[in-house]
Amino acid sequence: MNTKIGVIGLGGMGSGIASRLLDLGQRITVWNRTASAGDALVARGAARAATPAEAAASDGVVITMVANDAALESVTCGEHGFLDRLGPEGVHVSMSTVSVGLVRQLAERHAARGSHFIAAPVFGRPEAAAAGKLWVLQSGAPAAKARAKAVLEAIGQGVVDFGEAEEAAPVAKIAGNFMIASSVETMSEAFALLEKCGVDTHIWHDLMTRSLFAGVIHTNYGRFILDRAFSPPGFKLALGAKDVSLALATAQERQVPMPFASVLGDRFLASLAQGRGELDWTAIAIAAANDAGLNR
Amino acid sequence: MNTKIGVIGLGGMGSGIASRLLDLGQRITVWNRTASAGDALVARGAARAATPAEAAASDGVVITMVANDAALESVTCGEHGFLDRLGPEGVHVSMSTVSVGLVRQLAERHAARGSHFIAAPVFGRPEAAAAGKLWVLQSGAPAAKARAKAVLEAIGQGVVDFGEAEEAAPVAKIAGNFMIASSVETMSEAFALLEKCGVDTHIWHDLMTRSLFAGVIHTNYGRFILDRAFSPPGFKLALGAKDVSLALATAQERQVPMPFASVLGDRFLASLAQGRGELDWTAIAIAAANDAGLNR
Amino acid sequence: MNTKIGVIGLGGMGSGIASRLLDLGQRITVWNRTASAGDALVARGAARAATPAEAAASDGVVITMVANDAALESVTCGEHGFLDRLGPEGVHVSMSTVSVGLVRQLAERHAARGSHFIAAPVFGRPEAAAAGKLWVLQSGAPAAKARAKAVLEAIGQGVVDFGEAEEAAPVAKIAGNFMIASSVETMSEAFALLEKCGVDTHIWHDLMTRSLFAGVIHTNYGRFILDRAFSPPGFKLALGAKDVSLALATAQERQVPMPFASVLGDRFLASLAQGRGELDWTAIAIAAANDAGLNR
Amino acid sequence: MNTKIGVIGLGGMGSGIASRLLDLGQRITVWNRTASAGDALVARGAARAATPAEAAASDGVVITMVANDAALESVTCGEHGFLDRLGPEGVHVSMSTVSVGLVRQLAERHAARGSHFIAAPVFGRPEAAAAGKLWVLQSGAPAAKARAKAVLEAIGQGVVDFGEAEEAAPVAKIAGNFMIASSVETMSEAFALLEKCGVDTHIWHDLMTRSLFAGVIHTNYGRFILDRAFSPPGFKLALGAKDVSLALATAQERQVPMPFASVLGDRFLASLAQGRGELDWTAIAIAAANDAGLNR
Repeated sequence: MNTKIGVIGLGGMGSGIASRLLDLGQRITVWNRTASAGDALVARGAARAATPAEAAASDGVVITMVANDAALESVTCGEHGFLDRLGPEGVHVSMSTVSVGLVRQLAERHAARGSHFIAAPVFGRPEAAAAGKLWVLQSGAPAAKARAKAVLEAIGQGVVDFGEAEEAAPVAKIAGNFMIASSVETMSEAFALLEKCGVDTHIWHDLMTRSLFAGVIHTNYGRFILDRAFSPPGFKLALGAKDVSLALATAQERQVPMPFASVLGDRFLASLAQGRGELDWTAIAIAAANDAGLNR
Repeated sequence: MNTKIGVIGLGGMGSGIASRLLDLGQRITVWNRTASAGDALVARGAARAATPAEAAASDGVVITMVANDAALESVTCGEHGFLDRLGPEGVHVSMSTVSVGLVRQLAERHAARGSHFIAAPVFGRPEAAAAGKLWVLQSGAPAAKARAKAVLEAIGQGVVDFGEAEEAAPVAKIAGNFMIASSVETMSEAFALLEKCGVDTHIWHDLMTRSLFAGVIHTNYGRFILDRAFSPPGFKLALGAKDVSLALATAQERQVPMPFASVLGDRFLASLAQGRGELDWTAIAIAAANDAGLNR
Repeated sequence: MNTKIGVIGLGGMGSGIASRLLDLGQRITVWNRTASAGDALVARGAARAATPAEAAASDGVVITMVANDAALESVTCGEHGFLDRLGPEGVHVSMSTVSVGLVRQLAERHAARGSHFIAAPVFGRPEAAAAGKLWVLQSGAPAAKARAKAVLEAIGQGVVDFGEAEEAAPVAKIAGNFMIASSVETMSEAFALLEKCGVDTHIWHDLMTRSLFAGVIHTNYGRFILDRAFSPPGFKLALGAKDVSLALATAQERQVPMPFASVLGDRFLASLAQGRGELDWTAIAIAAANDAGLNR
Repeated sequence: MNTKIGVIGLGGMGSGIASRLLDLGQRITVWNRTASAGDALVARGAARAATPAEAAASDGVVITMVANDAALESVTCGEHGFLDRLGPEGVHVSMSTVSVGLVRQLAERHAARGSHFIAAPVFGRPEAAAAGKLWVLQSGAPAAKARAKAVLEAIGQGVVDFGEAEEAAPVAKIAGNFMIASSVETMSEAFALLEKCGVDTHIWHDLMTRSLFAGVIHTNYGRFILDRAFSPPGFKLALGAKDVSLALATAQERQVPMPFASVLGDRFLASLAQGRGELDWTAIAIAAANDAGLNR
């Protein structure tokens, strides 16, 4: 890669990705709303941009990893956004989990200007990002993907292609996050039942994850719930709430009844209303326990 | 093992277990309501009992693997039941997924007669049973477990102990089956969403099970759903309905609200009402697809 | 009416009915597990029976109004039950809300002995019972209804016939109680929404019940919720929980998915688990408010 | 009233209101996207406007009764919208059920121009509108309400004030529609249960609405369901779906978990996905019946 890379949004995930790129000897320019989040990266050699626009080179790659639709729209199309900086050789790699509608809009805006755009949401926690072990989903035009290829392979252990329709990868990501949240709720209800029946939840969890549910979500998240390891958050409950509401919004647009997603939506609302938005999203487990009269 | 072993109930699971014991050179006596289900085992050397009682030796091990509460009560305590055949050296190993209430009752009845009892439900399909690869859960008195130990180790790749309260292992099993059914519903909703958004469900399922959900349930059952491999059933939907209703009954007794289990209860009822009880239980996926207007 | 009438079960409803019969100059014999509950009635001229059996005359009417299946089975078929006291001229009028299964059983037992049986559950609070203003539902054989006619008309403002199948009126009653509970949950959610939006809930409730929802349930129960008039209970939440679970059990037996009933089942379980079983059943409203972070 | 009145949106409700105003001898100007919808009114003396703007007099009252947010925004603020026609003596009376967000926006826009605005959603079917029997909810500034007073009293049997915050009446309306939809679902589930138990649903409905649920919704809508009177629609299912989604959106914004509303959301999505959007909204009952295997 000799590409110029801008990384916009330096939360846990964005910082992890930037750090990985530095490890590989790549030169990057970073920007974050609160500039101090970039200090460690700058200390390691990253350039600091004063605005999102400055983080973009006309023939470069711009990675965005920000909190929500509003932030993504602002860094891209806002007053200091980079949209008009990218030229016909530049590509915007949008990694945030945002609404399908915004993805479509950005795809159109880039197309209208002749610049490239792909959606490339990822699975993985910040540690995985820093280690280049993310799972990357991508969708967009072949020419855009070609421009992003080297970068995505550098940060991921796998890049999975969902075709040309830009919104495909975001929908796949949203469905994946629904599956994670659903697994958390499932384990929460099971733990509440077992606890009230006097069954050892650790032994049960250990059995289930050694046998039928050996994946990392059940293994790790189940343990977080049992250990009440909700703070500091790996992924904030308030962000999880956003992702479930993206699933519900897409389901509504496409007329797909999703009763589990609806239950999850209410769980997240209750968790927010009761002040748990800053905990890890596995803390939705507290609701199932409270409902069962388990005051932990 | 020089123990005399009776195997009562020769559906897929019971037959698999009996076959495994024959493979190990163990002499067994088998009984099934419809006798012909035992023909293959008898051809391989198993003795055939004319009644459940005849399948039991006073100092032997009796394994029961039958469809539901009524069947278990009948083979144990009915007119030709084996309850009074077991002596102080005999042990009843109950492997069926039945209600917590019946398990308590059987434990008391055996105790009153001086015979032993453990609950030992299992995870695994018939092929796993035949290969000695089941996951065995057990609960009951130490003396009873000691008598069952060799047999359980012969049929399982692992025996997990849930303590002395006989109902503990059945509750753990019920919670496990809830988790399986919940995973099926989750994938069904996700598939419906993805399909209506035009996202390739096979690519998505492959990604999810290579990354976050690598366990066998998500891998295998997800594929069954995608391939509509609902018949012949590995585990009948009508039996899955029973298991979810056991979870709900236990939840009600212990006052544990379980909104996901409630949704599942309704899914299974709809599936039964619409005539899908004889399909594999992954066929509850048809409901989510139908609700989304996907007439497959 | 010159009939001999026994009234078994002297909670609010049973006492109200007995009082009404005394008002009409009818001679009655009463029984209650805790005898003191009958003191006021005895002071007004009622005879007191020492056992359920003594409350029954062989050619009389026996009204049962007790808490649940177990109580009804005990007063009818238990050691001192009245089952064998009723002769071919006698009729058992079962007014309790109990399971469909028990109703069928009692119908069969009476039939086997040549005595009569009808199910006659009622709608109305204790004050309505005392004023002869209950709504009475009945089902059973014509000959049995003929024997109960005068009594039912004396206590009700209307007697509605659901035909000959004894379980019909109980199912109709269970469905009615489901409708009441569902209305309570609906108003609870609406109130929570309005309150968090700063809309005056009293004005709203007044409008709704003057316009579209003028019935007594919405009018009165809505006011109970707004006034938090949960104690003393008019009808205990624990009894409401039983009625919803009867609806769910019937729905399961007949394969009828009822997602609202499932939500209600979980609401009642949460309310019981959190210690609100002795409040009025409108107190399930507390759950919706708590979930919304409204700590009232 | 000597006020000049414009009526924009001539569906069933808008036409009914316009007709009522003509009955009272009021001069009105009407506009509808499809002009022919106004023919009958014009024949009776109404003036026809070529654009929404033309329907407004600077010191008049403009009533809008259109299908959704987009339509309301278009007639008000679009190219031919009337927003800039209203002067400091003019008032916009918004009667459509639209999102809280749009109501806030319109309130601000009018305020910025010095014109008046109130939200005045209504309960009632077209016949009630034509008869001046609507229930009118209103919210907005006192000066705005004063200007709309005579008109609202002319079309309603009652005008209920929800205070100064413009969004209050819309939220109250949304909560009311949620209550209607919830009653429909409740009756649908009860009917399915009763039918599968062989209980006469007409007798049951008649009893319930003579006793505990005497309001018009339960009386009339219950009968629609029993008679399958789903077409022609009194209120289209697709519009009901919009209203439930408005309730869910408001609930999400304010963090109010509403499990019944969530179930309703899924019911409406299933009904739309299966092609029932043009039926009356009581046709969501078909879903409960289908789920129970009742193929009517």
